Amino acid sequence: MNTVRMTVARTADPAQRKTLTDYEQIGFSVEANLADGHAYQGLSHSQAEIVERMSDLWAYSEAQSIPESTQIYVDRYADLIGSAYLPDASTHLILPTASNSIDLVAAYLKLRHSRVLLTHPTFDNLALILRRRGVDLYPVTEPEVAGALPLAPKLAETDVLFLVNPNNPTGTNLSKERFEEIVHACLRHDVMLVIDTSFRLFYPQNWDDYQILHESGVSFILFEDTGKVFPTQDMKASLFTCSPDNRAALHEIYNEIYLCVSKFTLAVLGDFFDNARREGLDQSVHSLVAQRRSRAREMLGEEVIDPTARDSRISVEWISTSNIGQSDKTVTAELHERGVGVLPGRGFFWNRADEEAGVSNIRMSLMKPEPEFERGLEILANYFAEVTHR
Amino acid sequence: MNTVRMTVARTADPAQRKTLTDYEQIGFSVEANLADGHAYQGLSHSQAEIVERMSDLWAYSEAQSIPESTQIYVDRYADLIGSAYLPDASTHLILPTASNSIDLVAAYLKLRHSRVLLTHPTFDNLALILRRRGVDLYPVTEPEVAGALPLAPKLAETDVLFLVNPNNPTGTNLSKERFEEIVHACLRHDVMLVIDTSFRLFYPQNWDDYQILHESGVSFILFEDTGKVFPTQDMKASLFTCSPDNRAALHEIYNEIYLCVSKFTLAVLGDFFDNARREGLDQSVHSLVAQRRSRAREMLGEEVIDPTARDSRISVEWISTSNIGQSDKTVTAELHERGVGVLPGRGFFWNRADEEAGVSNIRMSLMKPEPEFERGLEILANYFAEVTHR
Repeated sequence: MNTVRMTVARTADPAQRKTLTDYEQIGFSVEANLADGHAYQGLSHSQAEIVERMSDLWAYSEAQSIPESTQIYVDRYADLIGSAYLPDASTHLILPTASNSIDLVAAYLKLRHSRVLLTHPTFDNLALILRRRGVDLYPVTEPEVAGALPLAPKLAETDVLFLVNPNNPTGTNLSKERFEEIVHACLRHDVMLVIDTSFRLFYPQNWDDYQILHESGVSFILFEDTGKVFPTQDMKASLFTCSPDNRAALHEIYNEIYLCVSKFTLAVLGDFFDNARREGLDQSVHSLVAQRRSRAREMLGEEVIDPTARDSRISVEWISTSNIGQSDKTVTAELHERGVGVLPGRGFFWNRADEEAGVSNIRMSLMKPEPEFERGLEILANYFAEVTHR
Repeated sequence: MNTVRMTVARTADPAQRKTLTDYEQIGFSVEANLADGHAYQGLSHSQAEIVERMSDLWAYSEAQSIPESTQIYVDRYADLIGSAYLPDASTHLILPTASNSIDLVAAYLKLRHSRVLLTHPTFDNLALILRRRGVDLYPVTEPEVAGALPLAPKLAETDVLFLVNPNNPTGTNLSKERFEEIVHACLRHDVMLVIDTSFRLFYPQNWDDYQILHESGVSFILFEDTGKVFPTQDMKASLFTCSPDNRAALHEIYNEIYLCVSKFTLAVLGDFFDNARREGLDQSVHSLVAQRRSRAREMLGEEVIDPTARDSRISVEWISTSNIGQSDKTVTAELHERGVGVLPGRGFFWNRADEEAGVSNIRMSLMKPEPEFERGLEILANYFAEVTHR
């Protein structure tokens, strides 16, 4: 028998509801792919030396036990971000990708029947993964997170505050003071704090969020990513930690799917961490992003950058198309015809993807091979000039 | 607020209900870890040459587009298993691990509200992952799958037949004729066929299951693994294909979590495939497994092998402890004290994990570094001799 009672997850016309990842895959086929935010900017000279010694790294990781390789990886990452507290976190899980970490959180929050506030706007796969597991989801806006609008009324009505910090696509990044305020507000309202720090390394690491979380006693989950920063051809890992109260159930769900992540992958990434620590994040990561951002703003004009993203330091630009009077979908489609892949903005507004918000934004990535980036920028600049004078 | 209404997934005492992966993790800390079935047997001479040229492989994969790297990977795997049909399958998804593939199937079957028959016994994480997503699960036994007992009555009452073939832990592997019978029975009963072929490469590849599936018109999903065979330190990938009717929804769920898998990982694995194809599976894989199996049976005695697994060619031995009158848990615990990790049998009987089935079995892995394997075998043999004379 097979009487399919499939739940209709999308609107009737699937073309109306492409996800951001759908657009990223479309981007694979164009001349200049500035759609996805994965790090493909090419290796620096010293990073290329890591690749040169990969055979030695294989032997190095081969000789380690799985627990040893995990601890070394954690220690090297902690050194990179200057965290004294990370090595002693109550647990260290490592997943193949940050999206797998989101899904682990999703399975756990479903188990807890949690009501969840999620950053809005943000990349749509967080909401898609959480909702796929059946998690009850509500938006929290950047002004509410930043403190420009009150957050407490929403915290009083929720079980979990799930933040993407720094946020993608805007780059909005909490100050230490605001982070502490949020942690203590969560404590007061008995709210669990979940933080996706995938874009962390694009900002200077001057204070230790692990320390604040640990010392506050708040219930938390925090997971990292490597794939946005290090150009390792999507060889990546997502370090996942939590407070002791969340440990047992998360381990149980983790163990259903994962035994471990490749020791070799961890050794290679660990060498990238050490390299970035020695050179400094500023030198090894931030300067290239800043240079690419300057080029983009020079070519396109500062005024096309969305006002919410003018101070962004992450590896994507959040562009407003309102000046040229075209919707995100039109711009994305017309740029695609010209050979550039970008993301339409509405997908980031996961709570109202078919409405007006976000229809005047596109997102472009900065961390692609230089010739591809420059070619894409040229096409973008010509397109903006052309449409402005239509 | 945070009134946790957590569903109790385990019995009151968590120690009573460790999963097989829990035991595999415990195995990381012992002298001779024969618990997990991941391939850690050490590189052959020609495999070591692949590792030697990893820096070149990096440049090779760097120059490919994501779709190119996927197609090349598929073609090389198809060459290894001699499948003319695989390259033209309706879709090729690649996931980081076979467990991620199981979870993709789980999300899809939940969406379809499917009633699912799953191989029993088999490794417990399949049932755990499927049930975590809320899939409605029923066991189908090896005699029913093999045709010794009637399968049709169960097919008439189900939507999906989910087989692990070859099966883990018994190594039971369908003949071409029986495979065709099952495909046609599924067609007759309008049942979707899902096949986990993670242990496929331990058997000669003399016929093309993709061709049979494709030509029959049956609704199917099939996914592969590399992590059981190639000693790549858990750098792995799971190739996932399906019939056209399942394509759209599976792509949608895949895209929520994955954009792509590392091109570099695919290039390295592809070189392992080519190496195995050139040397022949017999020479590069089967001969070592057979040699390890002979050693195990020589040291422990043929009679300790479970009758259902005497003909097994997969990389684990399924051992009966009934001769020594001890339960799986006692044997596992006493071996752990002596420095060997193995898996207790009851976990494989996912539908009745606390009852009698499997309490007289343990599973040991063959594909570990030779000194570790020999040391483990020695401890096992001494233990069996000692307990027999207690």
